[in-house]
Amino acid sequence: MISKSQIRDIKSLHTKKHREISNRFIAEGVKTVLEIMQQRASIIKELYCTQEFYTTNESLLKNNTFTVSIINSKELSQISLLSAPNETLAICQIIKPKLISPNFDKQFSFYLDDIRDPGNLGTIIRICSWFGITDLFCSPTTVELYNPKCIQSTMGSFLRVNVHYIDLKEIIAAHTIKNIYATVLNGNNLYKENVKNGLIIIGNEANGMSAENIKFATKQITIPAAAGNTESLNAAIATSIIASEFYRNSL
Amino acid sequence: MISKSQIRDIKSLHTKKHREISNRFIAEGVKTVLEIMQQRASIIKELYCTQEFYTTNESLLKNNTFTVSIINSKELSQISLLSAPNETLAICQIIKPKLISPNFDKQFSFYLDDIRDPGNLGTIIRICSWFGITDLFCSPTTVELYNPKCIQSTMGSFLRVNVHYIDLKEIIAAHTIKNIYATVLNGNNLYKENVKNGLIIIGNEANGMSAENIKFATKQITIPAAAGNTESLNAAIATSIIASEFYRNSL
Repeated sequence: MISKSQIRDIKSLHTKKHREISNRFIAEGVKTVLEIMQQRASIIKELYCTQEFYTTNESLLKNNTFTVSIINSKELSQISLLSAPNETLAICQIIKPKLISPNFDKQFSFYLDDIRDPGNLGTIIRICSWFGITDLFCSPTTVELYNPKCIQSTMGSFLRVNVHYIDLKEIIAAHTIKNIYATVLNGNNLYKENVKNGLIIIGNEANGMSAENIKFATKQITIPAAAGNTESLNAAIATSIIASEFYRNSL
Repeated sequence: MISKSQIRDIKSLHTKKHREISNRFIAEGVKTVLEIMQQRASIIKELYCTQEFYTTNESLLKNNTFTVSIINSKELSQISLLSAPNETLAICQIIKPKLISPNFDKQFSFYLDDIRDPGNLGTIIRICSWFGITDLFCSPTTVELYNPKCIQSTMGSFLRVNVHYIDLKEIIAAHTIKNIYATVLNGNNLYKENVKNGLIIIGNEANGMSAENIKFATKQITIPAAAGNTESLNAAIATSIIASEFYRNSL
């Protein structure tokens, strides 16, 4: 059972404003919620789930401190943001990112300059997790990590990547970074540049990176396309190809 | 203006069954529809658009043979599948893919073994277009190219990639393919394998590739992850990284 006031409270978390005020966010779906329960159950405040989910995961659920409410699928669809709600929804506390003082000579990371699509941000976080990037940097204009679509598309990997919202000039003021790469349309061939650890700037989906930030770049790189191609690559796809190349060279 | 019977007809194309019966599909949004108008206007049968779209693209629209109906945004939302309908929707004729007799010693391509998510298929088509892959092969169980979500996520690149639905064993019977790569969890390191032209099998999002198809592989490859990673990569992201590596080696 779920009360009207609970529904109202949960639905308020569909908006960024209320997530920020109450310091809570929504995580949905079997895979994401199980990941949180297994890796960082302490952030879960309330968990709503179907009888089926409860029965399957009873031992995990019983050993936790959060409140569990069993609801039916109609109730779940009232609080869910998914077109096909998936058994469970958790209300979690927002995590303050820890900065593991990055050494940009020994590792590489990305600076997202105004990425707007929550699915792209979530996918990029998942790519970071895959390649062992523990700190991801975003311009203050980049879409919010706790946007439910973003959390959804991280598939739980937001638990392993610290996402920092910060101006590029502040990172540069605080760290010595030898290599700052800008990803542009007419830069040097990514495959021939022998790319090395440092910070890689990824620009906005439609407009690329800001004129202010491009000035900080020490190198400009491009993913070469086949002859005659006039297309663009999606920002998350471009990030995955670039991450792979940097990871390859770091092995 | 749009009539009730037109709305009914267009909405019938939201389902695969009716797309197949009538040999037509829906393409939506400014970018996709303009791409079709510029590259292959002959497939457009009917175009619906707002006054704004019409005014901006009047010269292009006047030189074409298809019927153009100016509709208001309320009417557009009645026929659209997008949560935020974007100015225009075209009814197009399904294209029969041309097989440009592939030589797998001189090029590489993918075989999608039961990819189910239309967004993944669309993104993979966009990746193929970027890297100059003109023929993409899919198992008959792979999601339909003309699924509106798939067409949407190709961003127009479905016009440049021939998508063939065929059993792997039929391709193998018809072509000599020296290198057939299976992408698996415990294969050889992608970066060290010196991958060469051939056919690369990409498995289903949840279950990987079928036991039947894996038997045809001459090599098994894996994208290495950072130590301790227990995650998976999205199928389209994995495909982009693999395509980049094969493209790199072909330069």
